[in-house]
Amino acid sequence: MKTGLLLGRFQPFHNGHLFALRLILNENDRAVVVIGSAQASHDAENPFSAGERYEMIRASLTEKELAHTAIIPIEDINRYPLWVAHVESRCPTFDLVYSRNCLTAALFKQAGYEVVEHDYHQRSQCSGTELRAMMSAGKAWERNVPKGVAAFVKSIGGVERVKQIG
Amino acid sequence: MKTGLLLGRFQPFHNGHLFALRLILNENDRAVVVIGSAQASHDAENPFSAGERYEMIRASLTEKELAHTAIIPIEDINRYPLWVAHVESRCPTFDLVYSRNCLTAALFKQAGYEVVEHDYHQRSQCSGTELRAMMSAGKAWERNVPKGVAAFVKSIGGVERVKQIG
Amino acid sequence: MKTGLLLGRFQPFHNGHLFALRLILNENDRAVVVIGSAQASHDAENPFSAGERYEMIRASLTEKELAHTAIIPIEDINRYPLWVAHVESRCPTFDLVYSRNCLTAALFKQAGYEVVEHDYHQRSQCSGTELRAMMSAGKAWERNVPKGVAAFVKSIGGVERVKQIG
Amino acid sequence: MKTGLLLGRFQPFHNGHLFALRLILNENDRAVVVIGSAQASHDAENPFSAGERYEMIRASLTEKELAHTAIIPIEDINRYPLWVAHVESRCPTFDLVYSRNCLTAALFKQAGYEVVEHDYHQRSQCSGTELRAMMSAGKAWERNVPKGVAAFVKSIGGVERVKQIG
Amino acid sequence: MKTGLLLGRFQPFHNGHLFALRLILNENDRAVVVIGSAQASHDAENPFSAGERYEMIRASLTEKELAHTAIIPIEDINRYPLWVAHVESRCPTFDLVYSRNCLTAALFKQAGYEVVEHDYHQRSQCSGTELRAMMSAGKAWERNVPKGVAAFVKSIGGVERVKQIG
Amino acid sequence: MKTGLLLGRFQPFHNGHLFALRLILNENDRAVVVIGSAQASHDAENPFSAGERYEMIRASLTEKELAHTAIIPIEDINRYPLWVAHVESRCPTFDLVYSRNCLTAALFKQAGYEVVEHDYHQRSQCSGTELRAMMSAGKAWERNVPKGVAAFVKSIGGVERVKQIG
Repeated sequence: MKTGLLLGRFQPFHNGHLFALRLILNENDRAVVVIGSAQASHDAENPFSAGERYEMIRASLTEKELAHTAIIPIEDINRYPLWVAHVESRCPTFDLVYSRNCLTAALFKQAGYEVVEHDYHQRSQCSGTELRAMMSAGKAWERNVPKGVAAFVKSIGGVERVKQIG
Repeated sequence: MKTGLLLGRFQPFHNGHLFALRLILNENDRAVVVIGSAQASHDAENPFSAGERYEMIRASLTEKELAHTAIIPIEDINRYPLWVAHVESRCPTFDLVYSRNCLTAALFKQAGYEVVEHDYHQRSQCSGTELRAMMSAGKAWERNVPKGVAAFVKSIGGVERVKQIG
Repeated sequence: MKTGLLLGRFQPFHNGHLFALRLILNENDRAVVVIGSAQASHDAENPFSAGERYEMIRASLTEKELAHTAIIPIEDINRYPLWVAHVESRCPTFDLVYSRNCLTAALFKQAGYEVVEHDYHQRSQCSGTELRAMMSAGKAWERNVPKGVAAFVKSIGGVERVKQIG
Repeated sequence: MKTGLLLGRFQPFHNGHLFALRLILNENDRAVVVIGSAQASHDAENPFSAGERYEMIRASLTEKELAHTAIIPIEDINRYPLWVAHVESRCPTFDLVYSRNCLTAALFKQAGYEVVEHDYHQRSQCSGTELRAMMSAGKAWERNVPKGVAAFVKSIGGVERVKQIG
Repeated sequence: MKTGLLLGRFQPFHNGHLFALRLILNENDRAVVVIGSAQASHDAENPFSAGERYEMIRASLTEKELAHTAIIPIEDINRYPLWVAHVESRCPTFDLVYSRNCLTAALFKQAGYEVVEHDYHQRSQCSGTELRAMMSAGKAWERNVPKGVAAFVKSIGGVERVKQIG
Repeated sequence: MKTGLLLGRFQPFHNGHLFALRLILNENDRAVVVIGSAQASHDAENPFSAGERYEMIRASLTEKELAHTAIIPIEDINRYPLWVAHVESRCPTFDLVYSRNCLTAALFKQAGYEVVEHDYHQRSQCSGTELRAMMSAGKAWERNVPKGVAAFVKSIGGVERVKQIG
């Protein structure tokens, strides 16, 4: 069984993330999605709690995709040389790491993992930073996220929270 | 949608836990399973890492059950008055709490949750403490855990680890 | 008995804070004053230790006011969803929260508290940030703080410390 | 102005503590009472939160005594060589330390403080450990604590909590 | 260049430790000595601070031995799966690990290190636990430690501290 | 015996640091070098781990200098009033502190130490910040560090790391 790992903060989970996750599910038997900075919420960079981000991911997947995806919230450890061991201790075993972050890629490569540097942001033309800015500015952000995410964010008053904190 | 919460350390995940989880899935639309003490592993009370316990739970469920179950590893916070808020911030929203621990039950009741004090240990006649003792003593522990758990524990040399640490 | 809560860092305690505290004592039977970021001191934003800020508040109140005021230093917890539970576990019970901070107000409202958004800064025309800048620049800051605070700050070489750190 | 420091966990605040505090107020201009292990509550050694212990102390003092007493909750730092500096940074300045704990006495002496080894437990014939045991066993504990403490403990269901946790 | 790692708490550094360290220096180009639980001191298991233990080791070595030995105090991380990465990030590179602790040995082996299970305690017939008990009981402990350690412990009143804490 | 203390982050250890350390060894019987922010690495301000910085210092000293120098990695404690006690508890006893940092100097003076405000940066015309910028920009940084440091940084791919993180 081959497992691919996707790391992100998912503030919020958007179409680019979903694109990457589906790529992983196509190329592997299962996916592990790490919700990073699980301890953070209600600040400008991290408006949503780990529980809320978990809901966003679940709301974006089919039942079959869900059954092949492990979603794992992980707190920051803030000590880079321990990051790979920290992720390993919290997750099901994985084989491949999908990342566009240089440092993450370097740390996992150094620990012996194959790292796939995917390009989903280019394809989806969206990022968490931009989406939070669009929410703050009252622009139309909804088409950049899965429908379930848009509905969930609205149900918890997420746009108001982003405006208030930003 | 109604969601039931199950809290445990799952050292290891055994038939009693599976019984309780299936009870929750029968009585609710979905289940949230909190893997407590996620930071702990490789000690006598907590031989298995959060990632390993995650694998045990996944190996025990059908694909359909998995799609309706959120498994959330959570680190101890060691401050009881903050425990409910800590769990809430990490999990999808839940309605009912299934627990046999007095303090947990009291804290969630005080926060306004309905608490179901289930009796799975009596029915299954097993507990994590006993199972670790059986592993240490070389007794037959396998029939008290789901088949997938027994296979997984063996695949990682779990019994040897328990003997070494204990 | 009705209790009002005032939250602040009090770097330093100034006339605006005293104005708010007396408002609370007028409208309630007693006041709880939380000295936030109790762990911080000797940095540009937080020149004074929790103990020093405690002395400033005591030096500003009459004996009768002191007897009706609980002053509680609290360390940051840096996890917003736990902030209200953290404050509750450290303080005497309170009913009303006086705050001008949007996030604080939102978190306490969400937890069911009545929040009073007072306007003491406008009335007193001073803020901690401005006062620290005035100290650094050698300007006359003393008239913006209670007399006891001015005397205490001088007695510990506070202005020199602010200049040195700033 | 001379200030005496009293350190304790006050689980619960009892007649021996009150005796010591009044001794300090007689021999000094004011008292600083440190509520130690402020982070702990809801466990067998520490059933009451820092906020609850604060209420117990306030309920035991007259208005005049309150005006001359600073009550400061302090979290454990678990590094003995830093303990004195930790206490100093959180408290108003103090001159004398009242303690019956050998290590505490040694650490404060080494830091240059005069330490008074008072004997209030002998006089009052009670201790926190005994009082919690009496609560658990359903014995009459009330006469060993100030009246305000007995009333407060009952108002929060404290005896039930001690029984449940113990 | 070949480097051997010695891990211990060194409460206190005794003849068995010195024997092991000299063995490492004979078999390698240099030694790395990790002072574990660096944060601990002044408790029954850990009477001496990291700085004091550093002095003990220095006082036991010749100038030439010192020049080939790196002494590194390391705080506990309390998460076993991160322990090897934690040690690696704080120490000069090392090749061999000398240990008699089963878990330590297992963790370093799993990370790919060669582990030497030396038997110095048998040879030296002493252990930290026994030495602290001998100090407490007023027995002759001095001949089980290097001369420099005995002199240093006396110079800081170490025996009195062990008696007081124990 | 007189001991001088040198505090720094040594990102990287450069000629100015070596100049200061040799000054200390000339004026004292031995030196204690504290590697500050020991927990940090792989970020823009702190590219090198504590273990790597330890190697840099060792690679810069003669065998005789090494025998008279204690190198102690210390984690940040982020509470200034505890900083001196934290350093004291981790280090061999010291008499003099060499520092150019105003706050450090003030804290150690307040604790009763003599502080020497040396001027090595002026003499050596280099600083860690500048050196990291030179590495990032591909400029010649090597002549500003001891030869052993230049060789070590190259052997671990340090320049590439600085470029990648910066």
